[in-house]
This record gives sequence, C-alpha cells and structure tokens, in this order.
Amino acid sequence: MRGKKRIGFIPTMGAFHEGHLSLVQAAQRESDYQVVSLFVNPLQFGPTEDFALYPRDLSRDRAWAEQSGIDLLFIPRAGEIVPTDIDTVVSVPLLSRRWEGVSRPCHFQGVATIVAKLFQIVKPDIAYFGQKDYQQVAVIRQLVRDLYFDLKIRVMPTVRDKDGLAKSSRNLLLSSNDRVAATVLYRALCHVRQSVRNGEKNSLLLKKEVELILRQEKRARLDYVALCHPRTLEPVNRIEGKTILLLAVRIGSVRLIDNITVG
Amino acid sequence: MRGKKRIGFIPTMGAFHEGHLSLVQAAQRESDYQVVSLFVNPLQFGPTEDFALYPRDLSRDRAWAEQSGIDLLFIPRAGEIVPTDIDTVVSVPLLSRRWEGVSRPCHFQGVATIVAKLFQIVKPDIAYFGQKDYQQVAVIRQLVRDLYFDLKIRVMPTVRDKDGLAKSSRNLLLSSNDRVAATVLYRALCHVRQSVRNGEKNSLLLKKEVELILRQEKRARLDYVALCHPRTLEPVNRIEGKTILLLAVRIGSVRLIDNITVG
Repeated sequence: MRGKKRIGFIPTMGAFHEGHLSLVQAAQRESDYQVVSLFVNPLQFGPTEDFALYPRDLSRDRAWAEQSGIDLLFIPRAGEIVPTDIDTVVSVPLLSRRWEGVSRPCHFQGVATIVAKLFQIVKPDIAYFGQKDYQQVAVIRQLVRDLYFDLKIRVMPTVRDKDGLAKSSRNLLLSSNDRVAATVLYRALCHVRQSVRNGEKNSLLLKKEVELILRQEKRARLDYVALCHPRTLEPVNRIEGKTILLLAVRIGSVRLIDNITVG
Repeated sequence: MRGKKRIGFIPTMGAFHEGHLSLVQAAQRESDYQVVSLFVNPLQFGPTEDFALYPRDLSRDRAWAEQSGIDLLFIPRAGEIVPTDIDTVVSVPLLSRRWEGVSRPCHFQGVATIVAKLFQIVKPDIAYFGQKDYQQVAVIRQLVRDLYFDLKIRVMPTVRDKDGLAKSSRNLLLSSNDRVAATVLYRALCHVRQSVRNGEKNSLLLKKEVELILRQEKRARLDYVALCHPRTLEPVNRIEGKTILLLAVRIGSVRLIDNITVG
C-alpha cells in the first residue's frame, strides 16, 4: 500500500476500548488504510509491574478489530519484536526522567524502543495516540523529530466514562468498589481546573487541593501530581498560560494515570 | 533517486584517505548512486578526547569527493544533526560495553545515534564501513537488525600503508617519530597471527606476546589487546576457530586502533 495510500497506524497493547475506537475513527477520517498493532510490550513494564496481569483477550480483540473496519490487525509474536539477542535501546532521557519516569524507571525506554521498531516495520504516514498517556506522547513526538521519522503524530482527546473515569485497559482490573473510587482522579482534575478558572495561580496550593480530595477517598493513594509546561513537562510554579496537570494514583493494586489542560 | 536507483552510502568524518576510497569504489561497483556524508560527530567524542583536534580540511575533502566520482557529498551542519533540543539516544549496550566502550564510555552511543539519524535521512540500500573500526561495525550491524533498517551493511578490508599502518584520519596527527613508532601495531598483530598459525591457542600467552612487542617501542602505550568472538566480541580463552584480535595503543598523544582475524 505504501506510496499509493496514506497509512494510518494505531499502536496498541490490546484490550480495546472506546479510547482505541476514537483513534481508529480519526484514522478512518484521515487515512486510506488503517493498521492497528496489538503487542503487550514487555520492555515497558518494570520487574514489579503488572505485565503478567495486563488484560489480554485476543479473540475479543480480533472480533473488535474486524467490526471496527480497520484494514490490518498486526499481532507480532514477542520473539519477533523482542528476540533474545536484541541489544538496541532507544531512549529519550530528558523527557523521561520525571513523573512516570520516576515511578517506572525503564518504562519510556521500553516504549521508545518498541515504537521505533513498529514505525520502522509499518512505515505509516500518520500515527495515532491518546492524550491520556500525555508524557508518552511527548516522548514519541521527540523521538519522531530526533530520528526524522517521516510521519505525523495525531493525538486524540481522552475518552471518558459517564462518571469521568478515563478509558483505560487497566480499568478492567478494578474491583467494583475500586471502580467507584477511581472517579476521584477526574474529580480532582476538574477541581483544579475550576480553581484556576477562579484565579488561583499557585501550583503548590493547587497540588494541595488534589492531595486533600484524594485523602477523602481511602482506597486511593497518590503517586504524583504535577503542574507542568505542556511541551517540556518541566514543573511550573505559577499558572501563567496553558499548563498540563498530570496525576497518577493507585486505587487498590491498580495504578491509574490521567491529565487535563488548565490555564 | 529512491526506488529508482540503488543508493550506496558511506558515512564519514572526512579527512579522506585510501580507506574511504576503497569504500567509495565498492559502492561504485555495487550501487547506482553514491552518497558520502561528512560529519565530525561531536556525540562520539568524550569530554577529554580529540574532537577539537580531529583533522578537518573541508576544501581538500570537497576536491577529493569531486574527483572520486561520487554523486552527492552531504555535509550537514552540527546544529541540524545535533540540535540543542535533541533528546533521543540510540544505544547498543551489550556490544558497546567492552574494549572501545571501556576507554570511550559514550562513544558507541554517539555513533549509533548519529548513524541511525543518517540512515533515516539518506535511506540507503547499502551502507559501507571499514573493517578497521571492527567493534563499530558490530554495533551498527546490531542496530540495523534490531531497528529493521531496510539496508545491507558491507564491510571492506582495512587499507594499510606499505609498512602496515592502517589508514586512519588520525594518522595525520602523528609526529614523524610517532609515525615510525605506529608501525608497532601491525607488527604485533602479524606476530600473533603467526603464533596462532604455529599452533599457539592460549589467549593469555598470545596477549603477552603483544605486550612484549609493545614494550620494545617506548613511544607506545597499550590501551587494550583482546582476542574475542568475531560476532559477540566476548573474550575467548582459547583460539578454537575464527577469532578477532583487537588492539588499541596510544602513540604519544594519538590513540590508534587496529585488528586482524586469526584462527
């Protein structure tokens, strides 16, 4: 298809949900041939993380892909993408060092290495990512720029359940009580957005508000909350313009992330 | 030219010599369109190394390139290839950790990052390297395999002066006394090859022979000598088959490397 059709590519780890669907639909609007890859990337999980538990349902995902109208579902074997004698690492150290990078030290190196490989294999014209993984998108944008990948990155807004919880494959791992508790993330984000609209500019105070809201939900444990520059992801002390609010919270044993733009 | 002609690519740091010419000639035999890049890569020099001193003579190199009959001389500016906001690093840690990697800790990371960039820009069908930089070639082969670069690596034999000294841009930095002393590298390599032919299989003894020969040349200071597996570059204790002998020596202030296949 290359050269003849515009190839839209959506790299995923499966367990498809409405967030993935919004990427597929954007690709269907903007490209001629849609490729979805499904690969639970072992390199992006730390040794104590949930690689083994990550939701997998291949037959459901195949049916979903078929129904979605995409042209190609690419399911590489782990031994193909991560052979035992692999030795090349792609990393984006400055953008990776904060936030998710603190809690998950090799996460973005694993993401960058596998996304670089998938881009080299698929050679898409446009690649689609969800805004929910904000720092990941920043890392991949930098990777594309630095390594001259000849493709465009498109980022689609986070899709949410009616109660505001961001769609995520990991939501499947939540118990029903934890599912209720998980709404605290979006409540905290919206609260800060409203405070900023009301004129609060002090990052420290805004982060304190998040801590207070989270303390009211005893199943929740804050991992980090950050207000930062939307491109560099460096923390800002005062909200002077468009700022990204990043949040990572453990609900029981499940770690969830979310973000919102403020200012 | 892409798709229509086979593109042969020779990445260089300039200061062209007969070693480069042999790569150009191979490219002229095997491809339709020859691209030579000239870029003294700052990322592959350590903070105490000879980046500032590395031989540069752009007008001579331009004339040489013109005469050689290549189709394109690509001279990117440093700010294009290594902009101040670059953040992506490509590394091949296992193959880089020994030998040159010990003496030059970030060297191969710098090589891999820039070669990956040059491959992405030029998109050659075949890329040419000299056997003199043996470990570099191993790193680049691994990089090409791991990141699915759609190109073939060709390695041309080391070109030598009549007295055996391997052609290298750094030879220009040798004083005339040091130039004479530098012949000790090839003498040591040939001596080991002959010892292996005579039946010696013990790596430790063979390396001792190199040390002895180098001690006779008082301008020379051994950096490392290694007998290793030709692909993994892991050291071997006994010469049981094809083995690579790697040698790095300082002659005065100039660091030279060479290698030879034995067994």
